[in-house]
Amino acid sequence: MKAIVTVTLKPDVLDPQGRAIQRACASLGHGATGAGDGIAVTDVRQGKRFEIELAGGDRAAAERLVRELCDKLLANPVIEDWTIERIES
Amino acid sequence: MKAIVTVTLKPDVLDPQGRAIQRACASLGHGATGAGDGIAVTDVRQGKRFEIELAGGDRAAAERLVRELCDKLLANPVIEDWTIERIES
Amino acid sequence: MKAIVTVTLKPDVLDPQGRAIQRACASLGHGATGAGDGIAVTDVRQGKRFEIELAGGDRAAAERLVRELCDKLLANPVIEDWTIERIES
Amino acid sequence: MKAIVTVTLKPDVLDPQGRAIQRACASLGHGATGAGDGIAVTDVRQGKRFEIELAGGDRAAAERLVRELCDKLLANPVIEDWTIERIES
Repeated sequence: MKAIVTVTLKPDVLDPQGRAIQRACASLGHGATGAGDGIAVTDVRQGKRFEIELAGGDRAAAERLVRELCDKLLANPVIEDWTIERIES
Repeated sequence: MKAIVTVTLKPDVLDPQGRAIQRACASLGHGATGAGDGIAVTDVRQGKRFEIELAGGDRAAAERLVRELCDKLLANPVIEDWTIERIES
Repeated sequence: MKAIVTVTLKPDVLDPQGRAIQRACASLGHGATGAGDGIAVTDVRQGKRFEIELAGGDRAAAERLVRELCDKLLANPVIEDWTIERIES
Repeated sequence: MKAIVTVTLKPDVLDPQGRAIQRACASLGHGATGAGDGIAVTDVRQGKRFEIELAGGDRAAAERLVRELCDKLLANPVIEDWTIERIES
């Protein structure tokens, strides 16, 4: 099985790397103030994504284990949210 | 509109951070050699995930812009792959 | 000139990636409980490091600019500390 | 003891996150083309920094262990360089 997990900063936590990318878009002509073709990047948030390969056990055991990994190894629950996007068999 | 982009190391590029997480699973009793409940973490790959907020323009312009951002700001095409997971309106 | 900046999580902010590396050390025989050769990894903290190349201006202008970058683009002051390690001419 | 390790992309490996920060500087008035006060950010490279707390053993054992961690857990030797900045006792 393979589990896909995403970890994102909570919405109220400032993300300087995302902000740098948003500002960099201005240098490509797509800053928050718009551009010639009328489309602008108004915000960027950077998160993490984990692909976790699992062997043995059933789907319920996989989900239990992935939840444990999220809590203990992948995310800081004070500043980050985690989501199990999917578990593929 | 909001675009979700994932950036992952190419499959043949070693990922030390993913490997550290896989090894750390052993300390939780779920290393590659299995454990009491028969489920093991055999591999972990860490990638990046970007949420990009867009204003103005249509869906085609959004996709063009996001592709440009992936090529120029979000990924190193020599060692990373990028995917536009979805564009939400 | 070249400025070296480090950004670290504040001491009271949990660092899951550092913790994963610390736990991974156990799988190499160097966990917190020690090992055959009597040395153990008891904690790991992961931070960021930036090398910033600057052109024009004098050292005072460089330091002013690097401070501005730290505040606006490189660090989240709520959860991170930044340090200008050195400015090389 | 505490070891400080830095991991940087090799000079010939493109660093999109560093480039985004360099481009973002333009939006602060300090792009590669200079600015009013005559100082410009011409390049940014982003790396990692690890603080590793060690217990037991002597300095030589610490250095051996930190080298092993760099090779096995902290860096991808194909695309990254690592440096032990210092070992504090």
